[in-house]
Amino acid sequence: MLRRWFLVLGTTAGLLGSSASAFAQADPLPSWNDGAPKKAILDFVSRTTTAGGADFVPADQRIATFDNDGTLWTEQPVYFQFAFAIDRVKALAPQHPEWKDREPFKSALADDLAGIAASGEKGLLEIVAATHSGMTVEAFSKIVSEWIATARHPRFKRPYIELVYQPMLELMGFLRAHQFKTFIVSGGGIEFMRPWTEKVYGIPPEQVVGSSGVVKFELRDGKPVLIKEPKVEFIDDGPGKPVGINRFIGRRPVFAFGNSDGDQQMLEYTAGGDGLRFMGLVHHTDAVREYAYDRQSAIGKLDKALDEARQRKWTVVDMKADWKTIYPFERK
Amino acid sequence: MLRRWFLVLGTTAGLLGSSASAFAQADPLPSWNDGAPKKAILDFVSRTTTAGGADFVPADQRIATFDNDGTLWTEQPVYFQFAFAIDRVKALAPQHPEWKDREPFKSALADDLAGIAASGEKGLLEIVAATHSGMTVEAFSKIVSEWIATARHPRFKRPYIELVYQPMLELMGFLRAHQFKTFIVSGGGIEFMRPWTEKVYGIPPEQVVGSSGVVKFELRDGKPVLIKEPKVEFIDDGPGKPVGINRFIGRRPVFAFGNSDGDQQMLEYTAGGDGLRFMGLVHHTDAVREYAYDRQSAIGKLDKALDEARQRKWTVVDMKADWKTIYPFERK
Repeated sequence: MLRRWFLVLGTTAGLLGSSASAFAQADPLPSWNDGAPKKAILDFVSRTTTAGGADFVPADQRIATFDNDGTLWTEQPVYFQFAFAIDRVKALAPQHPEWKDREPFKSALADDLAGIAASGEKGLLEIVAATHSGMTVEAFSKIVSEWIATARHPRFKRPYIELVYQPMLELMGFLRAHQFKTFIVSGGGIEFMRPWTEKVYGIPPEQVVGSSGVVKFELRDGKPVLIKEPKVEFIDDGPGKPVGINRFIGRRPVFAFGNSDGDQQMLEYTAGGDGLRFMGLVHHTDAVREYAYDRQSAIGKLDKALDEARQRKWTVVDMKADWKTIYPFERK
Repeated sequence: MLRRWFLVLGTTAGLLGSSASAFAQADPLPSWNDGAPKKAILDFVSRTTTAGGADFVPADQRIATFDNDGTLWTEQPVYFQFAFAIDRVKALAPQHPEWKDREPFKSALADDLAGIAASGEKGLLEIVAATHSGMTVEAFSKIVSEWIATARHPRFKRPYIELVYQPMLELMGFLRAHQFKTFIVSGGGIEFMRPWTEKVYGIPPEQVVGSSGVVKFELRDGKPVLIKEPKVEFIDDGPGKPVGINRFIGRRPVFAFGNSDGDQQMLEYTAGGDGLRFMGLVHHTDAVREYAYDRQSAIGKLDKALDEARQRKWTVVDMKADWKTIYPFERK
C-alpha cells in the first residue's frame, strides 16, 4: 500500500517535473502575436540577461519604466482619473450648493466635458483642488479604493481596473522574471494610482512615480497626519518624466514604454544611455476592441513621438495587429 | 569508491545542515550589547514576523526608514556632505579667482567654519549652489564617487564610508532577512548619497529619500541630459521627512530610526500608525570611540526628540553602553 503511494507520488512528481519544464519553455508573451515588437522584446531580454554577452546588464541596473494611461490601461473616452474627479464632484455637490451655478462644477455635474474644457486649465485645476485635497493622504487613498472597486467604464460597463492590457501584464511579469525592476512613470496622480497598482500590476506604491500635489505634515489633536493641499507640486509629464525618474529612481532606465507625446522625453532619456536600450510605444489602432487615435487626439496625443520612434527604429506596437488579446476578460 | 563519495557527500550535507542551523541561531546583532534596545529590536521583529500572531505585519508593509547622518554614519565634526562642499570649493577655486575675497567662499577656502557660519543660511546656500549645480546628474554622481573614494575624515584619517555604524549595518541586514524593505530618509542631498548607499548599506538608489535641488531636462547637441540647477526643491528634514516618506514610499513606516530633532516628525508619523511600531534614536554618548553630543550641539541636535522618546518609551540607544563595536574597522 505504502509502495503504491510512493509510485503515485513519484509519477505525480514526474508529471509535475515535465509540466514545469514545459511551462518554462512556454511562450512568455502569449497575448502578443508573432511580429516585430514581440521579437524585439524577446531579443532585448535575452541579450541583456545573458551573462558574458556584449549587451549584458547587471541585475541591479535593470530598470524598466512604464507610462500608465494608454500604456498599461485604457485612457478613453477620458483619463480615468478625470472620471474619478467628476464622480467626486457629484458626490461632494450636496455640501456645495453653489456649484450648481458655478463653472467648471456646473458642467461637471452635467457630464458636459466640453463645458469643463471651456473653463481651461484653470477650471481643471479647480476640479482637481476640490476633489483631491483637504483630507489626509489615508482618507484620499480610501476614497480612491472605494471608487476603483465600484465605478464602471461607460463603454465596457466594467470596473476600470479590468481595462488593463493583458499583453502589458505579461510583459511586466516577463521582465520581472528576468530581474528587471518595473516602475510606473505616469502623468497621472501618484496618490490616485498607489492604492491599486500592487494588486493590478504587481507594482508596489514605492515603485510608482507620478504627478503630485503639496502635502503638509500636521499634528491634529496630537495625531500626526499628512494633509493634501490644493496646490500642484510636480507634473510628471513630458520633460517632467526624466526629472521624475531621476528624483524617484535615481537611475536611467534601460527599458521604457509609453504611448503618447507625453512619453517622448522619457524614451529619449532612456535611449540616451550607454549600451542596449529598449524604447516602445503603444499605438492605439483598434477601434473595435479598444480605441483608435493618435495625432489628432486631445487625450493621449501621439504625433512627434511617433515620428521620432519611426525615425530611430524604436518599437511601435500596432495594437490591432500585434495584440491577440487586449483585456484579460477577453480570454474567458 | 562511488559509495565512499556518497558517504562523504552525505556527511558533508549533514554537517552543512547542522552548520546552517547553528548559524540561524547565532546572534544576528553581535555588535549590540545585551540591553533594552537589542531586546526591543529582537522582540519587535519576532512579533511582527510571526504569522498568526496579534502583531503580525504582512511582508509588503514592512517598511523601515533610517536617517543617515548620525544614525547610519558619523556626522561630526561637520556633516560629511559639508566637508564635500568645502573640498569642492577648493577644487573649483582656480576657476573662480573672485572667491578669494568673497564670503562665504573666502572662509571655506581657509577652512574657517565660523566664518562660513557667519554668512548664515544665505552663505550656505551659495556654497551648495556653487558646488552642487551646473552639471549633469551623471557628472555630479561621478564627482561624489571620486570624493568618497579619496577624501579622509580629519580625526579618523579614514574614508568617510568607513565611518558607518557596524550595529546599524547588522540591524538593517537583520530587518532585510525578515522581509523588511529598508529606506534611507535623510536631510542630506539625495544625489550625494545615491552613488554609494548600495555598496555601503545595501540600499539601492531608489530606496534613498533625501533633500534635492531642481533638475531640468534638456537636449544638448541632441543628447538628452538632466542638469542640476542652483535652486532648492525639497528639504527632507523635520516635518519634511513624513512628506518625503509619503512622496517616495507612499506608505507609513512600521520601523524608524533617527538621532536628532530633525527625525522627530518621522518618528511621530511612524508611531501614529495602527499596530505595533518601532521608534528608535541613536544617542551619541561616546566621546572616546565616536562623539558625545545632544541638546547643545549645532550638528545633530537632540533635544525635543529625546524628551518625547523618553516620555513615550521609544528606544534610545546609548551608544557607549549599547554598542560593543561602533565602526566595522574596530573588529579586526
